[in-house]
Amino acid sequence: MIYLDNSATSFPKPKCVIDAVNEAMLKYGNYGRGSYEMALKTTEKIYECRKKVAEFFNSPSTDGVVFTSNCTMSINMAIKGLIEKGCHFIISDLEHNAVVRPLETLKQKGICDYSIANVEPCVYKTVQNFEREIKNNTVAIICTGASNVFGIIPPYSLIGDLAHRYRIKFILDAAQIAGVRKINMINDNIDILCCAGHKGLYGPTGIGLLVFNDDVVVLNTIIEGGTGSISSSYLQPDFLPDKLESGTPNIVGIIGLSSAIDFINKIGVDNIFKHEKTLIKYLYKNISKNRNINVYTNHLDVNKPLVPILSLNIKDYDSNKVSELLGDDGICVRAGYHCAPLAHKKFKTENLGVIRISPSIFTKKNQIDFTINSLFKIAK
Amino acid sequence: MIYLDNSATSFPKPKCVIDAVNEAMLKYGNYGRGSYEMALKTTEKIYECRKKVAEFFNSPSTDGVVFTSNCTMSINMAIKGLIEKGCHFIISDLEHNAVVRPLETLKQKGICDYSIANVEPCVYKTVQNFEREIKNNTVAIICTGASNVFGIIPPYSLIGDLAHRYRIKFILDAAQIAGVRKINMINDNIDILCCAGHKGLYGPTGIGLLVFNDDVVVLNTIIEGGTGSISSSYLQPDFLPDKLESGTPNIVGIIGLSSAIDFINKIGVDNIFKHEKTLIKYLYKNISKNRNINVYTNHLDVNKPLVPILSLNIKDYDSNKVSELLGDDGICVRAGYHCAPLAHKKFKTENLGVIRISPSIFTKKNQIDFTINSLFKIAK
Repeated sequence: MIYLDNSATSFPKPKCVIDAVNEAMLKYGNYGRGSYEMALKTTEKIYECRKKVAEFFNSPSTDGVVFTSNCTMSINMAIKGLIEKGCHFIISDLEHNAVVRPLETLKQKGICDYSIANVEPCVYKTVQNFEREIKNNTVAIICTGASNVFGIIPPYSLIGDLAHRYRIKFILDAAQIAGVRKINMINDNIDILCCAGHKGLYGPTGIGLLVFNDDVVVLNTIIEGGTGSISSSYLQPDFLPDKLESGTPNIVGIIGLSSAIDFINKIGVDNIFKHEKTLIKYLYKNISKNRNINVYTNHLDVNKPLVPILSLNIKDYDSNKVSELLGDDGICVRAGYHCAPLAHKKFKTENLGVIRISPSIFTKKNQIDFTINSLFKIAK
Repeated sequence: MIYLDNSATSFPKPKCVIDAVNEAMLKYGNYGRGSYEMALKTTEKIYECRKKVAEFFNSPSTDGVVFTSNCTMSINMAIKGLIEKGCHFIISDLEHNAVVRPLETLKQKGICDYSIANVEPCVYKTVQNFEREIKNNTVAIICTGASNVFGIIPPYSLIGDLAHRYRIKFILDAAQIAGVRKINMINDNIDILCCAGHKGLYGPTGIGLLVFNDDVVVLNTIIEGGTGSISSSYLQPDFLPDKLESGTPNIVGIIGLSSAIDFINKIGVDNIFKHEKTLIKYLYKNISKNRNINVYTNHLDVNKPLVPILSLNIKDYDSNKVSELLGDDGICVRAGYHCAPLAHKKFKTENLGVIRISPSIFTKKNQIDFTINSLFKIAK
């Protein structure tokens, strides 16, 4: 099997993560809610992960690391925690349905509105596009760190700076960039970072992150429940992380993620990026020559920042059909629409969808060679 | 270590569950979103678990099994998916903060109101208490399957029947009863069942269930995002389970839970109940004679249905202090308020909290003997 669907979920998982998950199942219990040794040990382990996450994204706030169930949950919490009746958001034209669907639902209910700013090859034009959409009632700009379909990295740091100049919150959907490129919440002007634990961070499924760049509570709750703190109150505590973490968290997932961050730190995000980028460039170089293969982004153009995600179509074949043929060769890629209608509209790929190829640190060059041959075979 | 905090999370986990989680980490990828073999195999595995859950609770609807992150999430989705401006809920006086905090938050925002009905020793009085609170704008009754502090089982089946006579939805918080007593959604008149996977169901943390008794979509969404279905739409699909499952689910957790349900089915819920109940009765019989130990529920009274949860205090000692002393003997119990202020108010234990003892299928009689001795030592 050649697994090239790491943008969906990374596979395989590092051995240390598998071991950590196993250890969590064997040795850890509930957390923050008991005073016996195992409970205290679990609480310590959870805190340790919070600390690692804060350091990983250069957030000065450990308590500002909130564990959620996935990136979608984090984004929903960020959007709905900020809304006031009649408010306005700005998003990029590369956003995933995790951003679009909550906002469109709120819009149809008459609660808030949103504008879409185009990401262009020129970073300044892009920032201008965002600036043009700012209104008096704009509460936040939400931008992806990288398109989950085409790999395009918008100039998020500059967009964050723009947001701050207008005293607007900047939310980064880091689903496709966390673990792939270094993110620095302070330098990159990110107020709220949302990401999954199971993609570029190499953790297990079922764990997401909502990270703040300080301890100040800026979000209202959308979920309330037991927090193990101020239990006698009928209302949620007003401090982080408790305010935004209700019920028993995914302890197994957090312990797995903690080990995953160690794994990434040991290799280095830059080295992971370099490894994957080298493979994608090699793939691009080979297949872009084939006139039957349509590649949507140029991975050799140094002026176009892209994460190592390559999308293509073969002739006018349905991408699902092509992915099945690749599947017959044991190659795992994701076809279709990738829950990102805006991005497909932008690239006029609404009819065919695209084949998305996304490697990981575990991907080998000979696997890319095999994939190239398989693509050529189908293209012929 | 003697682990008696199974109401918080069951420990140890069955070997088959630990193995299933490990296998999920090693062999399964994303689901419902790819057409290669591993994706299809994962999709099949997830469907298999949905089917098992539906059968386990006797719901005729496999698609009506929605995976969430924990019971708190399920309850929030149920409550907030039903609310209309100005509506009204009825809850019991044994509810957990997972029920109270969302409702109190909504109440303070002026969105809805709720009444509290007392659970009494007489089932008919209890049902009458609920009936008395029904108003024209009541949309649902929410009742716990068993108090997480005192083990009391309200007559939920009759309360469900009452709700249906008034065409009101009946939501069961099954956190403490799923896996401990047989639940039959049809016979017990349950429209929506909420529970955790990691307590009496012996699954891993990070997985919750929201189960409907048919395919009819009755809830609005509170979370929207990618579902891998109707991806080109900016709005959530309107069918189950997709409508209520956004983003990558906890695949590892679901696969673990699937194996956990097999484990329970193999032993039989009735046998699990019998085993735990025997231990709790034995504990009760021994400690209730000690005049320094205050036990709050009579586990020998056949007329009082209780799950195997026993709560106590020693003299007027702070329960946290007592749990630390038990902890020194390697006994793990949960002290304090258990996120259930209503129940503590009912039992007038707001000052001390209580020590809660909750066994599992893995608890041995000699562990209870050891606990009895330790309690006697502290009580002396």
